[in-house]
Amino acid sequence: MHRSIVALALLASGAPVAAQEPAPLSGDSEVCLSCHEGIQPGLVADWRASRHARVTPAMALGRPVLERRFSATDVPAENRESAVGCYECHGLRTDQHRDHFEHYGYTINVVVSPDDCRTCHPIEAEQFAGSKKAHAVDNLRLNPLFDSLVRTAGRGRELTPEGPSPVPASPHTQSQTCYSCHGTVVEVTGRRTIEREGDTVEVPELSGWPNMGVGRINPDGSRGACTACHPRHSFDIAVARQPHTCSQCHLEPDVPAWEVYRESKHGNLALSSGASYDWTAVPWQVGRDFRAPSCATCHNALLTDADGRPIVERTHDFGARLWVRLFGLPTSHPQPLSGATHTLRNADGQPLPVTLDGRGAEGLIDAAEQARRRETMTRVCASCHSRRWAENHFSDLDTTVAEVDRMVLAATQRVRQAWERRLADPANLFDEPIEIRWVSQWLFHASTTKLAAAMMAPDYRTFKHGWWELNRNLAEMEQWLAGHAPAGGE
Amino acid sequence: MHRSIVALALLASGAPVAAQEPAPLSGDSEVCLSCHEGIQPGLVADWRASRHARVTPAMALGRPVLERRFSATDVPAENRESAVGCYECHGLRTDQHRDHFEHYGYTINVVVSPDDCRTCHPIEAEQFAGSKKAHAVDNLRLNPLFDSLVRTAGRGRELTPEGPSPVPASPHTQSQTCYSCHGTVVEVTGRRTIEREGDTVEVPELSGWPNMGVGRINPDGSRGACTACHPRHSFDIAVARQPHTCSQCHLEPDVPAWEVYRESKHGNLALSSGASYDWTAVPWQVGRDFRAPSCATCHNALLTDADGRPIVERTHDFGARLWVRLFGLPTSHPQPLSGATHTLRNADGQPLPVTLDGRGAEGLIDAAEQARRRETMTRVCASCHSRRWAENHFSDLDTTVAEVDRMVLAATQRVRQAWERRLADPANLFDEPIEIRWVSQWLFHASTTKLAAAMMAPDYRTFKHGWWELNRNLAEMEQWLAGHAPAGGE
Amino acid sequence: MHRSIVALALLASGAPVAAQEPAPLSGDSEVCLSCHEGIQPGLVADWRASRHARVTPAMALGRPVLERRFSATDVPAENRESAVGCYECHGLRTDQHRDHFEHYGYTINVVVSPDDCRTCHPIEAEQFAGSKKAHAVDNLRLNPLFDSLVRTAGRGRELTPEGPSPVPASPHTQSQTCYSCHGTVVEVTGRRTIEREGDTVEVPELSGWPNMGVGRINPDGSRGACTACHPRHSFDIAVARQPHTCSQCHLEPDVPAWEVYRESKHGNLALSSGASYDWTAVPWQVGRDFRAPSCATCHNALLTDADGRPIVERTHDFGARLWVRLFGLPTSHPQPLSGATHTLRNADGQPLPVTLDGRGAEGLIDAAEQARRRETMTRVCASCHSRRWAENHFSDLDTTVAEVDRMVLAATQRVRQAWERRLADPANLFDEPIEIRWVSQWLFHASTTKLAAAMMAPDYRTFKHGWWELNRNLAEMEQWLAGHAPAGGE
Repeated sequence: MHRSIVALALLASGAPVAAQEPAPLSGDSEVCLSCHEGIQPGLVADWRASRHARVTPAMALGRPVLERRFSATDVPAENRESAVGCYECHGLRTDQHRDHFEHYGYTINVVVSPDDCRTCHPIEAEQFAGSKKAHAVDNLRLNPLFDSLVRTAGRGRELTPEGPSPVPASPHTQSQTCYSCHGTVVEVTGRRTIEREGDTVEVPELSGWPNMGVGRINPDGSRGACTACHPRHSFDIAVARQPHTCSQCHLEPDVPAWEVYRESKHGNLALSSGASYDWTAVPWQVGRDFRAPSCATCHNALLTDADGRPIVERTHDFGARLWVRLFGLPTSHPQPLSGATHTLRNADGQPLPVTLDGRGAEGLIDAAEQARRRETMTRVCASCHSRRWAENHFSDLDTTVAEVDRMVLAATQRVRQAWERRLADPANLFDEPIEIRWVSQWLFHASTTKLAAAMMAPDYRTFKHGWWELNRNLAEMEQWLAGHAPAGGE
Repeated sequence: MHRSIVALALLASGAPVAAQEPAPLSGDSEVCLSCHEGIQPGLVADWRASRHARVTPAMALGRPVLERRFSATDVPAENRESAVGCYECHGLRTDQHRDHFEHYGYTINVVVSPDDCRTCHPIEAEQFAGSKKAHAVDNLRLNPLFDSLVRTAGRGRELTPEGPSPVPASPHTQSQTCYSCHGTVVEVTGRRTIEREGDTVEVPELSGWPNMGVGRINPDGSRGACTACHPRHSFDIAVARQPHTCSQCHLEPDVPAWEVYRESKHGNLALSSGASYDWTAVPWQVGRDFRAPSCATCHNALLTDADGRPIVERTHDFGARLWVRLFGLPTSHPQPLSGATHTLRNADGQPLPVTLDGRGAEGLIDAAEQARRRETMTRVCASCHSRRWAENHFSDLDTTVAEVDRMVLAATQRVRQAWERRLADPANLFDEPIEIRWVSQWLFHASTTKLAAAMMAPDYRTFKHGWWELNRNLAEMEQWLAGHAPAGGE
Repeated sequence: MHRSIVALALLASGAPVAAQEPAPLSGDSEVCLSCHEGIQPGLVADWRASRHARVTPAMALGRPVLERRFSATDVPAENRESAVGCYECHGLRTDQHRDHFEHYGYTINVVVSPDDCRTCHPIEAEQFAGSKKAHAVDNLRLNPLFDSLVRTAGRGRELTPEGPSPVPASPHTQSQTCYSCHGTVVEVTGRRTIEREGDTVEVPELSGWPNMGVGRINPDGSRGACTACHPRHSFDIAVARQPHTCSQCHLEPDVPAWEVYRESKHGNLALSSGASYDWTAVPWQVGRDFRAPSCATCHNALLTDADGRPIVERTHDFGARLWVRLFGLPTSHPQPLSGATHTLRNADGQPLPVTLDGRGAEGLIDAAEQARRRETMTRVCASCHSRRWAENHFSDLDTTVAEVDRMVLAATQRVRQAWERRLADPANLFDEPIEIRWVSQWLFHASTTKLAAAMMAPDYRTFKHGWWELNRNLAEMEQWLAGHAPAGGE
């Protein structure tokens, strides 16, 4: 509460609050606003509340480096002295944008992409480009196993007189399910003339749109959607730092980071007291600006101590502080070297980071890199906890990962028995009830239990997809197998 | 934050904030408060914080029409110049209230009903009266199929030496389950004398009470409970507009509007930034008062643009902006013409809006009305999005509805096979495991997947009751059927 | 909003806000801070924001009794005039702390325990010591049935060529599952030398640490962790009073108090309007400080009316206002006389508060005590509701408890049939699928339905673990039994 009370007191006493003033706007963007403020008042108001409306690149360059939300060391002269308005973003690199169109004398892109944002945020764009998030589309569609999982999870049905007959997930359903978080491929499929209040405008027709998936492939060929976490048109860092943003995709039952966080002491504190935090400060000072972490605190923000010294550097590769991949496919393993995980092949030739019996593939980080990342994360913890507390916690996590992975390997043994006894057909690994149970074991229950251990959520590692479910699911697999033994059985 | 900071600064500098002052109170209500302020301090404090305590009808009538939270064009002279206090509501229309009682010289009703609220809010009461919500009780109890579902879902057990024997849901359990949201029938069953601090008061004995279900049938014969969304005794519009209100009933697993919203970009923004919104402004100006919608924004509030022009009118028929009924019974269909859906009969004579193979009944809105409503909702979207974005989104929704409905029809084919093979008994459609799976397909998984498509929640259309569950459930139905084939089987 | 607006206005106008000033700090704690402020800036900032940093025991003793957050009538002279700093807590009773160590001339304990907090909070410590929470560890480990449930719920697997072989939950997994909420046994297992920036410190090595379970057994032999609800190092009463704190353990699927509350009118109001409440006021005045209750309001806080008279006294025995134990084991029963429930034996000799057919054990509170507690809770309700409303509500709850318990007894009849027909082996009551369904009936579905009735959550008593699940689960148990009848079968 302190800081905001002080801010209000200053305001009430008439002190200047410079950051609230709008920055000068380019004539081009003035033209945009002259129509769009009336047409889309919410969109424009959102932008007017943004930092983009109140800061010019020149102003940003005048700030101390640690206080910048901007990583360019220079920007083109024509953009330097005006606010980051409509035209400054939608008018960039139009020759590379297949989604551009002519609009009252301007060339405008529909979709602003990471390569456009790169103009002012090159380091963020570069870090992101190497991350698993940036490859989230190809990591599904170019991995034959995951592509099969996507098509199977969203299977439709043709209705015939004999009964429903399964068909692979339609492109529509794929885009509405897995690819709604992973991202679609946005392509220009034609042109379309629209009439608005007597006027006609020709605009590109886009497929895979709307979509804000984090790995979206854009009409300029770039990968990603900064708006997945920095939603338009305020692009507010306070939103990106709050757990509700991550919670859109990192959710029960497959990756319940949000639910696990909410159940943890950290989540409790931030939900109980977060209204008094300064969610916009850059750098983000531990203890002064916040007192319990959100997702961004541990995973990507630049944090400083009371003397203004960095505790950890900012990163937009969200796996950069992680050493072990809890989201096992099917079991846990060191994080991959490259975000393009579809290029991995395990020792059995499958496009997976581990074999089905748990041996790691080539292309994963080595022990030294694991140790380095673990040390980075421990440094974050040690801002508030003793190092010993943090070390014990991560040592507990090691044990959980090993024990939970055995519950996955046990399920894999069981599904293999089903395949061997011809009780299930491995032609598609994901479509029969016993296979669905196997997938549930690693994709839901094991993933949840490990995440809950990593973030100290008591119930998610117990009853809710936790050990209770790991055991229940396996017992039911075994009961079904026992009832269908080839020799004898019921 | 802007507006609230300005408000605080004004306050700190001594500017008058007239709306905070209490309005003059009638002598009758003064009498009520003289005892009840001591007896129920929380109730009275809640009312003192309400607009009802701070505004007289005369003051309300003096406001510009768009700013009124009040739709009467006149009110009885005796109520005009005093705050809306205890007696002003609990003393209305006592001759029509079977729940009235004599209380220290006053005639008082226990339950204030929509027909009482109608005194000052006639348009709201009228719109509500035509809605599905107002008929929520009869739509269950007068529909033989849904009545059977209610009695089956809450079945109890008599314990006999041979084992437990099912009995239909008791009236108590019915009121605690389906009718807790739909509403109970509140009836006066007698009189009762209570002693309080040496004094005795005779009060009506009520059955079905307490209940705040939205379609409650009240002792004056009226239908509905305004307090379902405007909880006593502050009746705060800020509460009604927040998603937590809708979330009390529109919940996982049957109608997870709240969970879907929370998972969407809209929910993320409102949960991250909503503390800076003005949740009480009337009219509600897009961009100034809020920057991301809550349920009320899209479904019922009066919205204005920056010039104060209405974008959409207020409605208290919460289906009035909806063209397709996602909550399929069992598949989706045009919204009904009347809120009294229990009067519908499909082509097979069942009390359903569609046949089990998906043909719509009479009594649903036509294509022109569907188009009109779709245009209204698109206008809401277009306050912040391009029309093309909104149109693409609703076109995607059309495809999802068609594809998901096929997954329901597939489950219907399977349950029919169970009935035909006498593996299940259609005398009760809802009580055997294969039937429960069939209900889950339309009531839970299909409903969720369609809602998640309508509001862009990525995971609810994938794993959480989404396509994953639609497929898993159907595969398990099919496995069970395959193991119980009349000829052969396991 | 009122009170906080007033507070801000006062602040802005320069009025003194004494409570914001830090209190004098002891020289010992100054020494601690001289290093630790740099090492753990978040921890120290959290403490600086605490009441402990701003109040001395002498100041607390100077407050009117009802306003104290402190129940000692005196404190040792050496602690009286300084803030409650690092050394004041970590330097207490070191001779009784096996976790003490020498640290730059001071003797320091790692774990601050309830018996340390007792120095200033003796009544709270005493009330807590008698509660079920304080015995949460022994109530599992010393109860052979629950100990078996713990070991079974977290069973691991040894992998053999023939398939996975179950092993009881490891001590690690036990501490990560049930005991993560119930609490671990924290023991000193040795000493360890750590190096930090060239310096070496010898510290105790602890097992079962970190853990914040509410019944933790500490290295000084005391039971409990005040930090389970008053998290370090702000120990903020505003956090303890918010539902997010309770929600860490009182969660779906076993004790979904949080989810049920969120779905209730109370939860809706507090989530919609709670930002305007005063979550720190002591005493907590109904109507002025809050307008809808959180968990703490009904279950433990000292509440006063507008005249400052207590409505209910504070208690740190969180069952002290409860008459019936909804969390049936397996069916509901009067609350136990002692928090040490592992000492109970039912008429069949089992360590349960009831027999499997529902007869209560010795050691439960009698009808008079039940009536007294019910009256206490009714008094809380009656602050805002009519007594009749509250009485009707609790009468409804009685009926729900009776009806739901029959659904548990029905499941018990069915699992007994499985045992009798040798379809399952009662040597372990909790490990086979039919047994897991039986446990789900009482531990998840019945518990949820009753909690949802107690707090008026409409959907949790219907579809989400409610009556729907009670019936579905029982129907599936019966279908499985029917398919495995000893004579005949499918």
